[in-house]
Amino acid sequence: MRYRKIPDEAVWRLPMYLRGLLLSLEKSQETISSQELADFFGVHPWQIRKDFSYFGAFGTPGVGYKVKKLSTQIKKILNLHVSHKAVLVGAGNLGAVILAYPGFKIYGFEITAVFDNNPQKIGQKIENISIKDVSKLSLIKRQKIDLGIIAVPRKAAQEVADRLVEMGIKGILNFSPCRINVPKKVKVITIDIAMDLARLPYYIPSS
Amino acid sequence: MRYRKIPDEAVWRLPMYLRGLLLSLEKSQETISSQELADFFGVHPWQIRKDFSYFGAFGTPGVGYKVKKLSTQIKKILNLHVSHKAVLVGAGNLGAVILAYPGFKIYGFEITAVFDNNPQKIGQKIENISIKDVSKLSLIKRQKIDLGIIAVPRKAAQEVADRLVEMGIKGILNFSPCRINVPKKVKVITIDIAMDLARLPYYIPSS
Repeated sequence: MRYRKIPDEAVWRLPMYLRGLLLSLEKSQETISSQELADFFGVHPWQIRKDFSYFGAFGTPGVGYKVKKLSTQIKKILNLHVSHKAVLVGAGNLGAVILAYPGFKIYGFEITAVFDNNPQKIGQKIENISIKDVSKLSLIKRQKIDLGIIAVPRKAAQEVADRLVEMGIKGILNFSPCRINVPKKVKVITIDIAMDLARLPYYIPSS
Repeated sequence: MRYRKIPDEAVWRLPMYLRGLLLSLEKSQETISSQELADFFGVHPWQIRKDFSYFGAFGTPGVGYKVKKLSTQIKKILNLHVSHKAVLVGAGNLGAVILAYPGFKIYGFEITAVFDNNPQKIGQKIENISIKDVSKLSLIKRQKIDLGIIAVPRKAAQEVADRLVEMGIKGILNFSPCRINVPKKVKVITIDIAMDLARLPYYIPSS
């Protein structure tokens, strides 16, 4: 399902709200107010109400939103109501961090294949997944994998992206701090941790 | 310098534009159009023009923005015109990735101290920095460090954050996938890589 009218910036915030809702569900909380969600994420309650209004979720005044219903709605909007398989390319330090990361399961992600080009790594296992030779990336074609995670050095990133696109990957999470060119049908999100750090000094007084 | 009227979302995008401008500077490009920046980052040119207008940067029609002047302006707004020192707590796989990350220098960041609680790591060096015992975190007080990076397991994150705040750290980049409570004067940005992955399926058609 896709609601085309939802602005990108609301789409950007929805996984954040979903995380809060899922945590509340774990605690068997049945309703949540926009104020509670707002406090949790440090945004304004009106922002949350506005974001939710795009897909017709209106809380009951004095009661709030129904946690379970709202999380189901958000999952459907984000296309997270079905599970997704991902392939990881790059089994270095960063790859190991990604594989050990506990957060993916929360959203229904499973990394089912790992590739590297280092002969010393190929055949070994991390987190119970055998590392395969990246030259055999076509192995993933049979596996219904739709997401790719790139954790290779910058100079190899574009080539890996090209190969992933050839294999039918539709979305890429790119950890190499560089721009990747892909056909328009493929969505890339690049994570640049330095850029996140660069957002901090604005908020802190000069010493 | 701080321009209080710039909305958070524009502040969020400024480091991205700055990255584009710095890359253009490297190539000795003197002017850049909002269209060029937009193509680079996949946003709309009007978004860029709007974001820049908050601080009075108006391009010349047909010519664009002066790259050097604009990048200096953005650095001042983001408080990146001075260099910042950062302390890293956690020297595991993730810590090693962070220390090896080439992107920090671009924005004027330097990680000058690394701490861990693992006796086997304390005293060793990564990227030429000696890992120190986290119980001696007060060592940073003399070093004019204003930013902290948390790369420890989730259950230790809050305690590390409390210690960093005690030591006068004003901004924290948190890689532990959990909420951290700090006094209002301290700004925290939490990076959750699963959340970034969770933004992808919205953009890809269901198979």
